Amino acid sequence: MSTPPLISIAGRLADVAAGHSLPLFRTSLAVDLKADASPVTLADREAEAAMRTLLRAELPDHGILGEEHGRERLDAPHVWVLDPIDGTKSFITGSPLWGTLIALMHQGRVQLGLVDMPVLKERWVGVVGEGAWCNGQPVRVSGCTALAQARIFTTSPDVFSADEWPRFDALSRHCALRRFGGDCYSYAQLAGGTVDLVVEASLQPYDYLAVAGLVQAAGGVMTDWQGRPLTMDSDGRVVAAATPALHQAALAMLAG
Amino acid sequence: MSTPPLISIAGRLADVAAGHSLPLFRTSLAVDLKADASPVTLADREAEAAMRTLLRAELPDHGILGEEHGRERLDAPHVWVLDPIDGTKSFITGSPLWGTLIALMHQGRVQLGLVDMPVLKERWVGVVGEGAWCNGQPVRVSGCTALAQARIFTTSPDVFSADEWPRFDALSRHCALRRFGGDCYSYAQLAGGTVDLVVEASLQPYDYLAVAGLVQAAGGVMTDWQGRPLTMDSDGRVVAAATPALHQAALAMLAG
Repeated sequence: MSTPPLISIAGRLADVAAGHSLPLFRTSLAVDLKADASPVTLADREAEAAMRTLLRAELPDHGILGEEHGRERLDAPHVWVLDPIDGTKSFITGSPLWGTLIALMHQGRVQLGLVDMPVLKERWVGVVGEGAWCNGQPVRVSGCTALAQARIFTTSPDVFSADEWPRFDALSRHCALRRFGGDCYSYAQLAGGTVDLVVEASLQPYDYLAVAGLVQAAGGVMTDWQGRPLTMDSDGRVVAAATPALHQAALAMLAG
Repeated sequence: MSTPPLISIAGRLADVAAGHSLPLFRTSLAVDLKADASPVTLADREAEAAMRTLLRAELPDHGILGEEHGRERLDAPHVWVLDPIDGTKSFITGSPLWGTLIALMHQGRVQLGLVDMPVLKERWVGVVGEGAWCNGQPVRVSGCTALAQARIFTTSPDVFSADEWPRFDALSRHCALRRFGGDCYSYAQLAGGTVDLVVEASLQPYDYLAVAGLVQAAGGVMTDWQGRPLTMDSDGRVVAAATPALHQAALAMLAG
């Protein structure tokens, strides 16, 4: 792909999203738990609509998949996958660990992943096969190859089914430390080399595709629990690891 | 107390701690999991030693309790309780949600609580009976009185014993949403009105006294699981709530 212009477009999309989300953060407007009618959801929808307007103007042949406004031209060679506010629960509880996720798919595979953290003022971008950066500085996964040395993250026990939890529980108890919380930021930490393993379930394509692009671009491995590449049709169970050896060790334990 | 000078001393203590902790954040030095010999633990010890030097020079009659260097003059009317790096696991995994905790006790009760978040550049200070501020701006707890509307936080299922977890689990399933992760920052969110309830266990006095001062100063309630005031001899199980009604509802469910 013509990388710089597409990275530039991804950055402009993140700017558009932050323009809608950041002004609501820690306002009384944001603190409304009524799911679909909440101002946060409205901001999410408006942000995604604005991102779509930009894409239609700049790249009219590209497809779009978003959390709020469905699917357009998914048969196009390039498809953008958008989530203006990932970590809505973080957002409405005043935690800075929410972000904007933007993935660019090419022929069904992730090519570019962007994780923007507006409160932290950190923009993580990865282009698979080319590299990954945080605010322009190169980042890379750790060299961790063994569960006993691994720092593992997941957002919450609540992302797992009754069948999945014991498998995550057993895996994470073999690791050096396990932590909960973090949403999309856990994958940025993995890309930056300060976390070694992230395992989750119940995710949607707009949750996992952008972070998969970032992790892979930073030298890591990210697949479903069977080791298959992530696509728009994956089952929402993901394993992201710093190294192939760590990835294999995690897959073996998750197979149960 | 003579509030402004003591707030000023607390602020200088936080500055001293950040001078030792922040330079290590996200350096390869920080990423060392060997507990007692780790550079993070060394920074923790050096920071606490520097805080003690400042206190001895400025307030030689005050007592000190710290995580790393034990107890001095705990029979003094005023005792400072110090934790230079709360959230060591956050620190070593590159998460910004670690902080410095400083409490000032007077006659055995918390009088002042400071939560400093160096990466987020947020300093939360509360003086019980006078008010609470984040970076100088007044903050206050929410008005939430019912579990069904409450946003509840805890750091990890791992802080609870096998007997405690089912009680937290049942309580949190009655809430509007539950989130994991956050360490000391959850209490700052409570003081700022974006979280309504925080329940934890296995805490030490240097973990819970500073946040108790902040929460109470912001208008909230924080006690042990029996509703007793927190002291240096509490059992490490805490409930922090935005309102007395919410606090009572939580206590009733934790009694099991």
